[in-house]
Amino acid sequence: MSSEGEETPELLRSGKLAAAIDLNCDAGESFGPWHMGNDEALIPLVTSVNIACCAHAGDPLVMRRTVELARRNGVAVGAHPGYPDLQGFGRRALALSPEEVEASILAQIGALSGMTRAGGVALEHVKAHGALYNQASDDPLLAAAVARAVWAFDPHLILIARSGSLQSTIGRDLGLTVAEEVFIDRGYDSGGRLLPRHEEGSVITDPDAVSARAADLTLRHGLHAADGTWLELRADTLCIHSDTPGAHLLAARLRVALTDLGTELLSLGRRPLSTS
Amino acid sequence: MSSEGEETPELLRSGKLAAAIDLNCDAGESFGPWHMGNDEALIPLVTSVNIACCAHAGDPLVMRRTVELARRNGVAVGAHPGYPDLQGFGRRALALSPEEVEASILAQIGALSGMTRAGGVALEHVKAHGALYNQASDDPLLAAAVARAVWAFDPHLILIARSGSLQSTIGRDLGLTVAEEVFIDRGYDSGGRLLPRHEEGSVITDPDAVSARAADLTLRHGLHAADGTWLELRADTLCIHSDTPGAHLLAARLRVALTDLGTELLSLGRRPLSTS
Amino acid sequence: MSSEGEETPELLRSGKLAAAIDLNCDAGESFGPWHMGNDEALIPLVTSVNIACCAHAGDPLVMRRTVELARRNGVAVGAHPGYPDLQGFGRRALALSPEEVEASILAQIGALSGMTRAGGVALEHVKAHGALYNQASDDPLLAAAVARAVWAFDPHLILIARSGSLQSTIGRDLGLTVAEEVFIDRGYDSGGRLLPRHEEGSVITDPDAVSARAADLTLRHGLHAADGTWLELRADTLCIHSDTPGAHLLAARLRVALTDLGTELLSLGRRPLSTS
Amino acid sequence: MSSEGEETPELLRSGKLAAAIDLNCDAGESFGPWHMGNDEALIPLVTSVNIACCAHAGDPLVMRRTVELARRNGVAVGAHPGYPDLQGFGRRALALSPEEVEASILAQIGALSGMTRAGGVALEHVKAHGALYNQASDDPLLAAAVARAVWAFDPHLILIARSGSLQSTIGRDLGLTVAEEVFIDRGYDSGGRLLPRHEEGSVITDPDAVSARAADLTLRHGLHAADGTWLELRADTLCIHSDTPGAHLLAARLRVALTDLGTELLSLGRRPLSTS
Repeated sequence: MSSEGEETPELLRSGKLAAAIDLNCDAGESFGPWHMGNDEALIPLVTSVNIACCAHAGDPLVMRRTVELARRNGVAVGAHPGYPDLQGFGRRALALSPEEVEASILAQIGALSGMTRAGGVALEHVKAHGALYNQASDDPLLAAAVARAVWAFDPHLILIARSGSLQSTIGRDLGLTVAEEVFIDRGYDSGGRLLPRHEEGSVITDPDAVSARAADLTLRHGLHAADGTWLELRADTLCIHSDTPGAHLLAARLRVALTDLGTELLSLGRRPLSTS
Repeated sequence: MSSEGEETPELLRSGKLAAAIDLNCDAGESFGPWHMGNDEALIPLVTSVNIACCAHAGDPLVMRRTVELARRNGVAVGAHPGYPDLQGFGRRALALSPEEVEASILAQIGALSGMTRAGGVALEHVKAHGALYNQASDDPLLAAAVARAVWAFDPHLILIARSGSLQSTIGRDLGLTVAEEVFIDRGYDSGGRLLPRHEEGSVITDPDAVSARAADLTLRHGLHAADGTWLELRADTLCIHSDTPGAHLLAARLRVALTDLGTELLSLGRRPLSTS
Repeated sequence: MSSEGEETPELLRSGKLAAAIDLNCDAGESFGPWHMGNDEALIPLVTSVNIACCAHAGDPLVMRRTVELARRNGVAVGAHPGYPDLQGFGRRALALSPEEVEASILAQIGALSGMTRAGGVALEHVKAHGALYNQASDDPLLAAAVARAVWAFDPHLILIARSGSLQSTIGRDLGLTVAEEVFIDRGYDSGGRLLPRHEEGSVITDPDAVSARAADLTLRHGLHAADGTWLELRADTLCIHSDTPGAHLLAARLRVALTDLGTELLSLGRRPLSTS
Repeated sequence: MSSEGEETPELLRSGKLAAAIDLNCDAGESFGPWHMGNDEALIPLVTSVNIACCAHAGDPLVMRRTVELARRNGVAVGAHPGYPDLQGFGRRALALSPEEVEASILAQIGALSGMTRAGGVALEHVKAHGALYNQASDDPLLAAAVARAVWAFDPHLILIARSGSLQSTIGRDLGLTVAEEVFIDRGYDSGGRLLPRHEEGSVITDPDAVSARAADLTLRHGLHAADGTWLELRADTLCIHSDTPGAHLLAARLRVALTDLGTELLSLGRRPLSTS
């Protein structure tokens, strides 16, 4: 898909890029009395967490506790802003204007920063959630709105974007450091987009399949779409969904697989990312 | 009420304290399609604004535009966190635990900080809103929760508290700089609390009465409660309610009255505040 | 546009149809401390009100008071369900599934029915709001979801739908009585859709223009689109927007114009509506 | 506590009252993507369900599915209105005015009635939730507001109230049929109030203890408070909390215990309730 595919093996050989990878998960998605995910089990196994910011999930106490959980586990903390649609968990498209998206993301990163400041933890990255992530991957106005918000809050924040997406290009054009993300437990179509959740093959829970994909991504810099097509995809960070059944077991297996491949697990801020 | 009453004339004679006063108003209380207040008219007349943080009022776009309006008018910007009760506008008591209050305020200050960072504006103070302001004035656990949140976000933030309240003592004990606030357009009972809004005399809209109170506060360091009792009250900042009818006209008159009294209008961060 | 155009003159000559028309407005769109519209002035001038149901606007007290206001004015009461997006006032497209739309509308009609039962008022019609109204006008799955919800709540409820829309056909196919609606103060495109609010000519505030349109609709059964195209449109009910500036003055003028045309103002339940 | 204690044995001997009891549970407390409770397991074991109405919990789809689940199990359906505080799950006191409480409950019962109408199910009772239930048990203005709302919606609805509370007296005085409720799995203080959830002994999960309480309630018409005091309590209905761990196992044991005691399980509408 992207021309970066060609340069990656070179970088790998030089030990500069794919010898290290970040493993991220979403967290802090409980709300009030309602529990979601298994943050206690999963966070110790990743290197970065994306914490919900009270728009699509989370509440102030949940945010604060999740930041503290990340701090205790030495995991990099990022904001995970989404559409302000709690009932729909930010997974329903919502026609915000780019100006509304930009302001909403500023408010959401800011809300989380209240907790990182109080907890003495750095805020390192931003990754959009759900429908906002998907729409901003393809829509230039939304992609620019997301990137502008991140830049305006702090130009040193790393933007996590779908590998090969318009979002990652636009973020980089604006001057942000962008981490290309691949979903290790989600199926792709031949265009490099995630299969909708209701489709066969959209969620991958078999540890062997996940390990094989990790090998493809780190050694061959791509993976097979659900229809068998080979997709060239750079992976600076792998996402493991906290709501995939047995996510923490999958994460544990993935860590072993990556270690066996000679790939070090390192959060994004601790290694150079391509900015071209 | 407070022993500071005695020292104030001394400070006044020395030109250090009451020769300058801050004038603050709440702002950014519109929400979505619903307009409230007259920020465009009132903000140019004050020296500090307390901007709603999307819990009791405001939304991300409103916050952003209000920060920009304050910036253009050179007015000091502060956060105005309240109970998360939009329908009740944060005026209904809501039994949050101190831990919930602390987290909620951190999230709210943080949300506004997203806008001040994006706008290149300093965030200078915090003032609680409505039922939270009133309850934290008297309840030591809530007062401490508010103060801890402000401190944890940034120990240099100035906490605005009801003059002579437990909140102001507890904030100062925690190490915060506290600005003692008097409501120039609201009636007080003999205990120094605001009269409930439905009571006779709770809202003062007569410009002469407001000017007379300003003279009392700056020259005699107190004011008359609704029942005639004299209350000694230190006033570092005067609040003028944006929803008082004709608030901007009242503010204009008040500015004239204060200037006539030889009192300079200065935001809180631009002059020394007592920290004892 | 519709074949009903041809039969209308016949019905008109027979005195059965266009000799009477309903005039509707949206109402109850205040929320908590925020006021919207001028219900007190406008409701006495219409024959039907569509009351917001706490999803895109309104709150329980507002609903109750608006029902009471309608009762005192002898105006027919209907539900005005919208997308559950208060901040966006239900004007932003929100990707609810048809199943979610159906359940949401049932809950919203039900909520309003709490007030009509308590007020001893009949609930007579349902009209979707904003983005839901627009999307259900063209999308067969959403149109069917709206119609199913109305039918499931009470098959005797009248569904108000955009004149000539898929919604009106699908509602009638399901067995509902459908009232064809024309927006007297909104511009149309040549396809019979409302011009987006940000476009020139989308809101018509000139009383003469509104009166001329009323004449076109009652005598010639159509109106001119913004580009001059003649649209045949049956009008069982005319909508006057409560947020159009001077809406109540416009309504007063419209009443005079309609009376001059010999058209009686009657709410929908008080006269026969075509069900074919 | 109440003088009804004396008449109950007579009624029991005559086989008219305590030979039958209702077993109720709260249900429909999931929200959006967040699951709560185990409605599928618990509903088949009770005779009445109180379904959350989207204020403190629940959403339109959840309401609809829960009504359908109750219908399939032949269980009586009631509304479970609470304070509009989703994040606090309606368990935090919120200072609504009686007028606001009345309107909110009308809207909530109404919302649920949308689902019972669509499902062809009768709406039989109303029971307030959480902080609203507790506050209305003791506060005459809130108790009257709750009772007025129920009466205004439908005077045939049965009001479930804490046994011996002011709410039950006021409800009956207004003309409602009131069912006296005892919480079979919650500890009481000597004043007949529920122990706060954070106190030792507030939640009873031991099946033998629950069975012993059932025997006390049906045979001796009272139970022991946490401090050993004997409380006379009439029990028309027993509540088993859906969030008590193992609630469905407890319910199954309770059914056996009640059957062994010769007490029939019958929903409230299927037997006479005292109205004096």
